[in-house]
Amino acid sequence: MCLNKVIEQLTQALGEENVLTEKEELAAYSFDATADIPKVVPQVVVTPTSTQQVQEVVKIAAKYKMPLYTRGSGTNLSGGTIPLNQGIVMVMVKMNKILEIDAENLTATVQPGVIIQDLNDAVAEYGLIYPPDPGTVATATMGGSVAECSGGLRGLKYGVTKHYVMGLEVVLANGKVMRCGGKTVKNVTAYDMVKLFVGSEGTLGVITEIIVKLIPAPETRKSALAVFRSLDDAAKAITGIIANKVIPATLEIMDNVTIRTVENYARVGLPTDAEAVLLIEVDGIPEVVEKEAEVVARVCRENNGELKLAETAEERDEIWQARRAALPALAQVSPTTVLEDATVPRSKIPDMLKALRHIAEKYQLTIGTFGHAGDGNLHPTILTDENNAEEMKRVHKAVDEIFEVALSLGGTLSGEHGIGIAKQKYLEKEFGEAGIEALKAIKKALDPENILNPGKILKF
Amino acid sequence: MCLNKVIEQLTQALGEENVLTEKEELAAYSFDATADIPKVVPQVVVTPTSTQQVQEVVKIAAKYKMPLYTRGSGTNLSGGTIPLNQGIVMVMVKMNKILEIDAENLTATVQPGVIIQDLNDAVAEYGLIYPPDPGTVATATMGGSVAECSGGLRGLKYGVTKHYVMGLEVVLANGKVMRCGGKTVKNVTAYDMVKLFVGSEGTLGVITEIIVKLIPAPETRKSALAVFRSLDDAAKAITGIIANKVIPATLEIMDNVTIRTVENYARVGLPTDAEAVLLIEVDGIPEVVEKEAEVVARVCRENNGELKLAETAEERDEIWQARRAALPALAQVSPTTVLEDATVPRSKIPDMLKALRHIAEKYQLTIGTFGHAGDGNLHPTILTDENNAEEMKRVHKAVDEIFEVALSLGGTLSGEHGIGIAKQKYLEKEFGEAGIEALKAIKKALDPENILNPGKILKF
Repeated sequence: MCLNKVIEQLTQALGEENVLTEKEELAAYSFDATADIPKVVPQVVVTPTSTQQVQEVVKIAAKYKMPLYTRGSGTNLSGGTIPLNQGIVMVMVKMNKILEIDAENLTATVQPGVIIQDLNDAVAEYGLIYPPDPGTVATATMGGSVAECSGGLRGLKYGVTKHYVMGLEVVLANGKVMRCGGKTVKNVTAYDMVKLFVGSEGTLGVITEIIVKLIPAPETRKSALAVFRSLDDAAKAITGIIANKVIPATLEIMDNVTIRTVENYARVGLPTDAEAVLLIEVDGIPEVVEKEAEVVARVCRENNGELKLAETAEERDEIWQARRAALPALAQVSPTTVLEDATVPRSKIPDMLKALRHIAEKYQLTIGTFGHAGDGNLHPTILTDENNAEEMKRVHKAVDEIFEVALSLGGTLSGEHGIGIAKQKYLEKEFGEAGIEALKAIKKALDPENILNPGKILKF
Repeated sequence: MCLNKVIEQLTQALGEENVLTEKEELAAYSFDATADIPKVVPQVVVTPTSTQQVQEVVKIAAKYKMPLYTRGSGTNLSGGTIPLNQGIVMVMVKMNKILEIDAENLTATVQPGVIIQDLNDAVAEYGLIYPPDPGTVATATMGGSVAECSGGLRGLKYGVTKHYVMGLEVVLANGKVMRCGGKTVKNVTAYDMVKLFVGSEGTLGVITEIIVKLIPAPETRKSALAVFRSLDDAAKAITGIIANKVIPATLEIMDNVTIRTVENYARVGLPTDAEAVLLIEVDGIPEVVEKEAEVVARVCRENNGELKLAETAEERDEIWQARRAALPALAQVSPTTVLEDATVPRSKIPDMLKALRHIAEKYQLTIGTFGHAGDGNLHPTILTDENNAEEMKRVHKAVDEIFEVALSLGGTLSGEHGIGIAKQKYLEKEFGEAGIEALKAIKKALDPENILNPGKILKF
């Protein structure tokens, strides 16, 4: 094995301070936020500080055919950053400069290690926001969220990461630098390489610079909590709001299991006997917000929902505190939390919720479901224990069935968590044989030696 | 040559009524809407009526290594549909069914031959719109506009075609069918193949079905015409409006050459001594429209603009009639109209306008500039005569310089017309050597025999 040579060359290129080889250091990069996947310790970890250093790392990896796993904070939920075949882990957190905020063109240019929240804090003084807001906004990096195409709570009205990435600098598998896109709103010059790299999970190139679109911050917003005795009524309210031409910034659901768990954990005053609550926020200029809030209230009431409008900032915070507590609350009641992101067309939410209840009963599992109901992106969360082999068998069968149902309803395997290693085995069911061939051809075209994040999305 | 065999097999697969071989029939497919490019007559034209027939055509083309040029109405402006190496032209206009309007999920599913305006007419009764609106909305097909990623007048607020395509059925170069995307708002399952095919100009696959996103129609709108004595003031008004957090649905500019030509052609009462006019429309709910119209008026006046608000539907129509007259008016004053779509970041519009004036003087050419100022997408239009070889030399030099300036200002070669054959020679200047290699690798991955629209975007 040529590991010593690789480490020597990496140290020469990046300096000792950017090459980690101690056992304890390496162990910290053996896992990410995903449950129920293998931990693998890499052979060496590097922390480049410039595009040029990234190029050096890629060239060394290519030369020695060492797998190269690029990562940010490792908050992803599909095993995307696990160094499956050991090799090199490249951590981008030292490339964390906001290079430019261009308020006139409504863009920001950042390095991949910038934390999403830090970007939002920086653009706030210009009255602007960067809308994508995954739950991990305070820890996830821009590079990671672009590579995974993160979603979040505001996807319904504002879209997700891919709708905000305008330009990229990418180090390709051959070590060369490519720039694509830029600051123009319109760009149809050749293939849309920007969109190809967004969500490619680090398998096609290493993102070293990102130009994102910013938008004016909404002037005001209004939040509401609606309580439903029936799941069907809640589902009707969801589609009813949108059928009435109101697109809320956020339209979230929590089912009874989630409500009870959150209330037990955070004591925010949720009605534990409700079948579902919807958490809704509309935003914009005051006149629009008033009008839309009225429509939301009317539609919820028409569908037997009990509505509580947040009248103060504290009441608003309470509502979103409840929503933010969903995952941590579910996570603390059992040793292992298998969090999925099966996604269906909005109109199929009632069917999906019914199917999830049926699956939970069939496999005798506790499944709490919450998520971004407005865009059909649900998070069924199985509360289990990795060490209980018998139960895990049932968990795996339930997960298989969840994805089968999602696809049969015209949905997709992943709304916002990506494929990684967690959902690989279902990929052909969505893309078909011809689709898998096409995906593989693209991976081979841009990374013929399979150096970049090998073993993710596609298996060779 | 095996042409007879190819025609025989095509006829067997598609029926006689879908295979054209008469000289006069073929001649109709030798050109498109682009000026100053070669006309080439194809060897055979087919008009498939189903995905299966498209598969047959692709397989026959692959078997005999015949180039296959897919097209709709041929309204593109970069030579994208010219059958450069003869071969087969496949016209998609017979696949023109609107398969579904799903008002609940805000989607429509269409075949590629559907005319954009027909889709908009069909969804209007649901109170919905399909926002992309290229100038050719009444003749262009959905398939063509997806393949070219059409832009249009509403790009600033509503985005362009790529922002509305959610799912595709594509026949690949090997004749197999792939489906990608779907009706879910969020989808991060593997590479974003939908976005890769949008704007790929028919070089990667044949689009046979399209799922697009619809949005609620704006309740109301307000149009204004602002007259400026100085280009600089007009440019300041453009950036000023957006800096004041108003994103108009449409924000168009016409320079003095265009104003004079339009007035001479259509007599709509434009001030022929103005250096520039802005044509602005804000839309949304009445309260927002009022508020935004006030901001627009204030910013224009602050920058020495004379504002005329359309008070009636007729006045509104007059304003947009003037804008729509720009290209036909310019086109009728000279035998040849070379229409470009150099695009720069919004803040660089004053620099670009100055550069265009300088280039016109330098090469002694008449250049009328109009376009989508709000998104930096200008249409410098050179009025010339293809038969004047000496002048055409100057035209070509001017075009070279236009793109050089656009790129040096951080812009792109094409905001909405695509690369086709018209802008191939500039492509490496934007993408660099590494980028061109990557683009070529993708083309080779999906179309290894170079059957699909060969010679477009990339040269092999």
